[in-house]
Amino acid sequence: MKLLHGGDYNPEQWLDRPDILVEDMRLMKEARINTVTLGVFSWSSYEPEEGHYQFEWLDEIIDTLYKNGIYTILATPSGGRPAWLDEAYPEVLRVSDMGVRNLHGVRHNHCMSSPRYREKVRGINNKLAHRYGGHPGLLMWHISNELGGACYCDLCKKKFQEFLKDKYDHNIDLLNKEWWTTFWSHQFNRFEQIDPPSPRGEGSITGLKLDWKRFTSWNMTDYMKSEILVFKALTPKIPVTTNFMCLYPGLNYYELAEALDVVAWDNYPKWHNEDQKIWETAFENAFDHAVMRSLKKGKPYLLMESVPSQVNWHPYNKLKRPGIHRLSCLQAVACGSDSVLYFQWRKSRGSYEQYHGAVIDHLGSSDTRVFKEVEEVGRLLTQLDEICGTVVKSKVAMYFDWENRWAIEDMPALSNEKKYPETCRLYYKSFLRMGIDMDIVSCQESLDNYQIVIAPMLYLLKPSTAEHIKKFVKNGGTLLATYLTGYVNENTLCYLGGFPGDGLREVFGLYSEEIDVLYPRDHNSVRFVVDNFLKGSYRVKEYCELLKTESAKILAVYAQDFYEGTPAITVNSYGKGKAYYVGARLDEVGMSEIFKKVCSEVGVLVVDLPEGVQMHKRTDGVFEYKFYLNAAVKEQVIPIGVTETVMFASDTLSTRADAESSQQWVLKPNHCLICKSRL
Amino acid sequence: MKLLHGGDYNPEQWLDRPDILVEDMRLMKEARINTVTLGVFSWSSYEPEEGHYQFEWLDEIIDTLYKNGIYTILATPSGGRPAWLDEAYPEVLRVSDMGVRNLHGVRHNHCMSSPRYREKVRGINNKLAHRYGGHPGLLMWHISNELGGACYCDLCKKKFQEFLKDKYDHNIDLLNKEWWTTFWSHQFNRFEQIDPPSPRGEGSITGLKLDWKRFTSWNMTDYMKSEILVFKALTPKIPVTTNFMCLYPGLNYYELAEALDVVAWDNYPKWHNEDQKIWETAFENAFDHAVMRSLKKGKPYLLMESVPSQVNWHPYNKLKRPGIHRLSCLQAVACGSDSVLYFQWRKSRGSYEQYHGAVIDHLGSSDTRVFKEVEEVGRLLTQLDEICGTVVKSKVAMYFDWENRWAIEDMPALSNEKKYPETCRLYYKSFLRMGIDMDIVSCQESLDNYQIVIAPMLYLLKPSTAEHIKKFVKNGGTLLATYLTGYVNENTLCYLGGFPGDGLREVFGLYSEEIDVLYPRDHNSVRFVVDNFLKGSYRVKEYCELLKTESAKILAVYAQDFYEGTPAITVNSYGKGKAYYVGARLDEVGMSEIFKKVCSEVGVLVVDLPEGVQMHKRTDGVFEYKFYLNAAVKEQVIPIGVTETVMFASDTLSTRADAESSQQWVLKPNHCLICKSRL
Amino acid sequence: MKLLHGGDYNPEQWLDRPDILVEDMRLMKEARINTVTLGVFSWSSYEPEEGHYQFEWLDEIIDTLYKNGIYTILATPSGGRPAWLDEAYPEVLRVSDMGVRNLHGVRHNHCMSSPRYREKVRGINNKLAHRYGGHPGLLMWHISNELGGACYCDLCKKKFQEFLKDKYDHNIDLLNKEWWTTFWSHQFNRFEQIDPPSPRGEGSITGLKLDWKRFTSWNMTDYMKSEILVFKALTPKIPVTTNFMCLYPGLNYYELAEALDVVAWDNYPKWHNEDQKIWETAFENAFDHAVMRSLKKGKPYLLMESVPSQVNWHPYNKLKRPGIHRLSCLQAVACGSDSVLYFQWRKSRGSYEQYHGAVIDHLGSSDTRVFKEVEEVGRLLTQLDEICGTVVKSKVAMYFDWENRWAIEDMPALSNEKKYPETCRLYYKSFLRMGIDMDIVSCQESLDNYQIVIAPMLYLLKPSTAEHIKKFVKNGGTLLATYLTGYVNENTLCYLGGFPGDGLREVFGLYSEEIDVLYPRDHNSVRFVVDNFLKGSYRVKEYCELLKTESAKILAVYAQDFYEGTPAITVNSYGKGKAYYVGARLDEVGMSEIFKKVCSEVGVLVVDLPEGVQMHKRTDGVFEYKFYLNAAVKEQVIPIGVTETVMFASDTLSTRADAESSQQWVLKPNHCLICKSRL
Repeated sequence: MKLLHGGDYNPEQWLDRPDILVEDMRLMKEARINTVTLGVFSWSSYEPEEGHYQFEWLDEIIDTLYKNGIYTILATPSGGRPAWLDEAYPEVLRVSDMGVRNLHGVRHNHCMSSPRYREKVRGINNKLAHRYGGHPGLLMWHISNELGGACYCDLCKKKFQEFLKDKYDHNIDLLNKEWWTTFWSHQFNRFEQIDPPSPRGEGSITGLKLDWKRFTSWNMTDYMKSEILVFKALTPKIPVTTNFMCLYPGLNYYELAEALDVVAWDNYPKWHNEDQKIWETAFENAFDHAVMRSLKKGKPYLLMESVPSQVNWHPYNKLKRPGIHRLSCLQAVACGSDSVLYFQWRKSRGSYEQYHGAVIDHLGSSDTRVFKEVEEVGRLLTQLDEICGTVVKSKVAMYFDWENRWAIEDMPALSNEKKYPETCRLYYKSFLRMGIDMDIVSCQESLDNYQIVIAPMLYLLKPSTAEHIKKFVKNGGTLLATYLTGYVNENTLCYLGGFPGDGLREVFGLYSEEIDVLYPRDHNSVRFVVDNFLKGSYRVKEYCELLKTESAKILAVYAQDFYEGTPAITVNSYGKGKAYYVGARLDEVGMSEIFKKVCSEVGVLVVDLPEGVQMHKRTDGVFEYKFYLNAAVKEQVIPIGVTETVMFASDTLSTRADAESSQQWVLKPNHCLICKSRL
Repeated sequence: MKLLHGGDYNPEQWLDRPDILVEDMRLMKEARINTVTLGVFSWSSYEPEEGHYQFEWLDEIIDTLYKNGIYTILATPSGGRPAWLDEAYPEVLRVSDMGVRNLHGVRHNHCMSSPRYREKVRGINNKLAHRYGGHPGLLMWHISNELGGACYCDLCKKKFQEFLKDKYDHNIDLLNKEWWTTFWSHQFNRFEQIDPPSPRGEGSITGLKLDWKRFTSWNMTDYMKSEILVFKALTPKIPVTTNFMCLYPGLNYYELAEALDVVAWDNYPKWHNEDQKIWETAFENAFDHAVMRSLKKGKPYLLMESVPSQVNWHPYNKLKRPGIHRLSCLQAVACGSDSVLYFQWRKSRGSYEQYHGAVIDHLGSSDTRVFKEVEEVGRLLTQLDEICGTVVKSKVAMYFDWENRWAIEDMPALSNEKKYPETCRLYYKSFLRMGIDMDIVSCQESLDNYQIVIAPMLYLLKPSTAEHIKKFVKNGGTLLATYLTGYVNENTLCYLGGFPGDGLREVFGLYSEEIDVLYPRDHNSVRFVVDNFLKGSYRVKEYCELLKTESAKILAVYAQDFYEGTPAITVNSYGKGKAYYVGARLDEVGMSEIFKKVCSEVGVLVVDLPEGVQMHKRTDGVFEYKFYLNAAVKEQVIPIGVTETVMFASDTLSTRADAESSQQWVLKPNHCLICKSRL
Repeated sequence: MKLLHGGDYNPEQWLDRPDILVEDMRLMKEARINTVTLGVFSWSSYEPEEGHYQFEWLDEIIDTLYKNGIYTILATPSGGRPAWLDEAYPEVLRVSDMGVRNLHGVRHNHCMSSPRYREKVRGINNKLAHRYGGHPGLLMWHISNELGGACYCDLCKKKFQEFLKDKYDHNIDLLNKEWWTTFWSHQFNRFEQIDPPSPRGEGSITGLKLDWKRFTSWNMTDYMKSEILVFKALTPKIPVTTNFMCLYPGLNYYELAEALDVVAWDNYPKWHNEDQKIWETAFENAFDHAVMRSLKKGKPYLLMESVPSQVNWHPYNKLKRPGIHRLSCLQAVACGSDSVLYFQWRKSRGSYEQYHGAVIDHLGSSDTRVFKEVEEVGRLLTQLDEICGTVVKSKVAMYFDWENRWAIEDMPALSNEKKYPETCRLYYKSFLRMGIDMDIVSCQESLDNYQIVIAPMLYLLKPSTAEHIKKFVKNGGTLLATYLTGYVNENTLCYLGGFPGDGLREVFGLYSEEIDVLYPRDHNSVRFVVDNFLKGSYRVKEYCELLKTESAKILAVYAQDFYEGTPAITVNSYGKGKAYYVGARLDEVGMSEIFKKVCSEVGVLVVDLPEGVQMHKRTDGVFEYKFYLNAAVKEQVIPIGVTETVMFASDTLSTRADAESSQQWVLKPNHCLICKSRL
């Protein structure tokens, strides 16, 4: 097994330049490319007119690649429809939420429900499966590209109504109750009366909006499965993937991931932006990796797209500074990726992405800074083959859930500063700074394998969520939740009898009577009031819940305003475990201190890492591989355990510190060190 | 007579929870609720399918309430249409200004012109009138809810054309002249060629835009009257109201108010926002009360909706701090309201307003801060029954007029900083700080009963406006007008021969030759130049008119720029009265000084109130009730006249100051004191 | 020959006020008006119902004007359609890019392709030509008004497809290649599949977007020619013009100008804005004059619209301060205009432009500041008749090109700070401060007559551009280009083999390997490194190209970041000439120093003008007229050559300085001095 190195390759754009295709092969070998993705958006090249196919060019490319030791991930071409297809079957085009059907153009512009589109896609996929399914160079199927968006056509509306019938047992009264439609006289008599949410129609029923997002996610998964079906039937041994877009808000990736063999994603951080230090960007990016990795429970995933230097679509497309490419590629591997793949191999001459970064520029030469950095990564990756297939496991988990996110975003209340993903990201960062690379869990998952679970803003409770939590704490787990916990059920009906609902009031030993919302320039603070916890005060912004404790013990109180002295942070013993409740939005410093204290109470090891250094672990069950990445702008000293061996350092000039016994390594900026130890 | 205390009650949302309905009754009595509003948005609950009615639940609720001493304001359900209605008669749905018909959903989404909708509403109103018109618990009819918006369907277009025919004597040439359509070749040959203004059509003819707003206001009134007709026929003794939305820009409330027996409105100030002190919010809110009160010439009105703590739709929904609820409720009474009503009694479990504040939270308990504050207000209101029915009268009035506002907003000129309502609000505040709670008048009203009239930015003159002004000043009144006075006639045709037009040039003894518009960072100042007026300089922003005086006397001149030394503020004797002209936009300090000086010259009493304290007066013709409200954050000393009796203090711990003779009372923050004296 | 003084006159708005028309004539003479523009938007007044004409009013007006010595520029009325026309032929109305047809209203709202509209316009133009073509008072035809906008109807779509067929030799494969449609599977099979770009369709193909803009410009020109045709047939001796809108982005004015006899434009600078000094506004405005003048290679053009004081459509419509009107009018003449014309003579009483400035206000009097300033300008212009017909020529030229601008704007890359026009404006300003009023050239022009050519951001190369440049430098010219030079061909296909492409790599002796994009708060700097050029460092923002020099000599290197020490500014000898390359976006100071140095090397005379003073030259081939304009707020000393004669000074009080021999004149603010000398 090898770590994959390569990326998107579009030879169909250069068929009239055979010299360039020959040069591509030479340069790929120079850059140590072992894998390419072919066929993304190639439908017009396969089937230039309906029913007229031309695959010979692809035959030759795949063969040549294979002969040169390069494997192919073959994409289905459904992301972009040929002009003839839209012309002949306009019903495959998407309809906007204003009810207007799109024209031919751009990409991701098809109705996921359209039987016609599914039929046409099945047809071309069948061709691909038959022709290339047995090719020894074929590594994987890649379904479409960056699936996303929504369609509001009549077909989708009808399918949405069917989805609702299934969900609500064909019982319109049940839907009316869960959507609380008596409000504003919104009761429906029949499912057929229900339209998707629209700026020119309904936009106020939170249950409808949430179910529409669920439907869109379900329908996209259903569409994706319809593509996968062809391959599972004809080439059952070839794994199937698609490329996710990080925290893309429109799809529940937990749902899509179940239908895939391998998770893959596209990663384009804004390096060197003016609001963050480089290491902060790197830490932020680690959270995205963690979410993607967790979709398949720590199994290796693929970095499907990344860029050697600048992209073309950020507001400011700054060059990646020297070494950042190495840092980000090795970070991917450290976080659990078995690949470093780029969009793209060679820049297009024209159209929308002609300036999207690539290994080969319009210049066409390997004598460029960018090429050399790619070549270096290719070389380094060949030293890491034993990492391939290893997994990531943590004793600490954090909830991050799309349904909860949607419910919070559409919550008609509180403030403009909702910041659910930002809050999760911040908490993840605090843990990573302590050397803990948390697992991410959805609202439906069991928490059995964790010692600590963090639940930021767990606003919506799925039927199983409270059960999992109660079981987890009862059995000795430590839970930390925050303001906005347990307000609504899965259809956004508020719990009666006090938040947090569904039995969590007992777990935390309190209820939240009110929630104060601060203006952006307002603030408050919390003051710790018990001996054996933290000292001092920490700043609070935006949200302050006014808590009524029952069995909970008060750890901190508010320091200002009319609720000065009332509980802000509490802990409650429940079964063998403990449940912390942080009622206010503390800043990063405050939350970090709390997390550190909680870890130390539970006995989870906290590592004192220098600023900018992140540590990740992968394991094959026998060995543990610790990755240290230095994203600071200066050298940092890394303390290595005496039982550990340094198996890899990206810069061979890294030097040991004086004291041999303590194994202190000096890690240069943008470099990586891997230690190996037996578990 | 009693002051009403209560609010919106939606038992139809809880029909499957009889325990909650029982608990509601118990808690209402605990909170001293004596009135509820039922039936807002209840159409689906009355008529779940077309022609199938179910009123039994409402029968029982009204009976039970009445048995418990609680009266009902019964709303018509037209604010929200049942799904079956929109499904069966899609023509009742509104059409946007882009010509797209809405889908079923949200609220306030019907065509006001639709004969079908009027018929269906008449039908359900008839049922209500017949069934509940004679119920002893019925207090008032409440028409629809927060009427607003506009429709651009073909029916409305046709009706608009008819409206124009009536207005312009079926003479298209007259319309062409008043709209000045020769400009840009816009002459119409027939009324049938005229479309409503639209982003995809006409948006440049100011006369058209103004007439369209007038039409929409007229049509909404016409629609409202079609609802009222049913009740006037069947229950002539039951008064009719609807709930206004403060300074809502889309409707001329003077026009709607005429069709109602009682004015009511919904009041949701942004308490504790980060741009104002609390008392500033309170003063701002007093202006809204004054506008609403003045719609019926000082007669008692109803506060129909307010919130005990936070709403759900502000950008930041902060909790009302302790005492603010009391302050704002007593302020409503002080300003002329005979009620304190809330939206809502109990929070909905779901949908768009599930987090809108209420007396009873999802928690369901009366053991909450919010409930206790409501209960306190209920208790205090029972001590104020003699206030009920008293009225408000002032010797000072200020113009605030929707037609003028529309004309200014659509004036294609000057600057982005138009600020007409803001300017009126600021002037009102200056007077209130001097203990003068001005009446508000429309452009068509007689000014006979006033000593001073303030005319901010009186840009548009209705045919009667200048007549009223001339008569007022001639007879000895004091008028103060500003820049932008008398530029256009009622159809936005500019007056020729110098602004202010329609004879006002003579009243003020000047004309305005030019108007300079300053950039936001620019400023100028005015310097007073006569002995017997003010001294010193005051800052000016945004507008400076360059005046040519004729008979006017110059009080102040500009201190900077090329028009340094030219007149900025003047006064002119006209008949027995005086007309002041303030040609520039002075800041609050400058205007306050001018107002104070003008009052003292006229002999209108100015009270020296401490910062944050406002005073209002109500009277029954025999006694005068002076309300003092302290919205400052500290105690303030209130000087009480020796002939006055303190009849009420919201906090019984308020203490007299030492000097008994001078009757100085110390008023705590957020508290209210009422003095009574014989007129 | 006389300089024209006058402006738009709309007597049709006052036909019911003959007294006002008489007064107009009197006041025009008082203001020394010699020319008016009639008939803009007068269609309804000519043809109130289809086929019913009334020209008598116009007959009388033109006659009366002529008798009073005032000439007429007669406009065609196509800018605004009568209501009956839109009612009878809705197909003449424009369709938006969302596919929605407009309603009747506003102006510039017709489909340029509509045969029906062209027929109706031809009809009315025929009437005008026949009736007035021989009138001795007729000076010029003025086609429509401020042509602009685009239409997306089916007719336009079809015409666009025909345009593409012509351009791409009816070869869809050629189009596919140039638009690089293999990307995203965008290959077209037939021209008929191509839609205009649309938010609901294609918006990603840069070649399509550019060709659509070209088509719109071509189609507008084609439409304009269809209007002109009538006049060229019937009145071949009457020149034809239309009024351009400065740097209006939607039309390639080089293309339109070819179809006109005389260029005219509308000029509305934001005097006294809060971000600029007055002289900066004046310098900025000079660039606009230079662009307009260069459309006809320095021949006299007309200032068709300007305003005596404030307009109505700026965000803040500040009054022009005293003297600024004189300054701006004389600046127009200095820059090459043979006219000073206003929009408008008399303010409309109503509708959208009722507050747009005019010579005569609603007041109706000549006793106003504005009238007097106009009258002064009228008086001054009569002293400048010998200037009339003189031309402007420069030895220095700068590229400013609409196609390049469109390509840069739609370039899907780099940063939000594209600033192509802003950059050109800044460079022009730097030269003007040195007394050099550059010519402006399009990408297709020969550079034969210049010594220095500046090429800012010459991103797109038309087929002839590189040829012209190579010839120019080979023959001894000095070229200065910047970052972003030569990236794409005329259809936005990137050049392969290194930027700048199409052979320019050899001209500059370098290629650009990467381009770094800085965030707004980032910066870098360049440091000069050769002895015989500049010294020191200059600040850099936004763009830094990383250059690889071949034959070029390095003048400056980057001073910071990872490319510190690498070339930033270079010069290359090529043939007899030199090619400078400025790889980074230097600030104004830096660029000014470079320009000054380059001028001095080439031997182009640089004048040391005081801040705020601009100098322009006009010539009749025998004499040279040098205009000095002082836009500073203080007096400035102007050094006059001993061989020069002061022929005009707008203020007769201008005084000579002491030293007679050196001819130093003291020029007051907002005044103008003209020196005459034999060439």
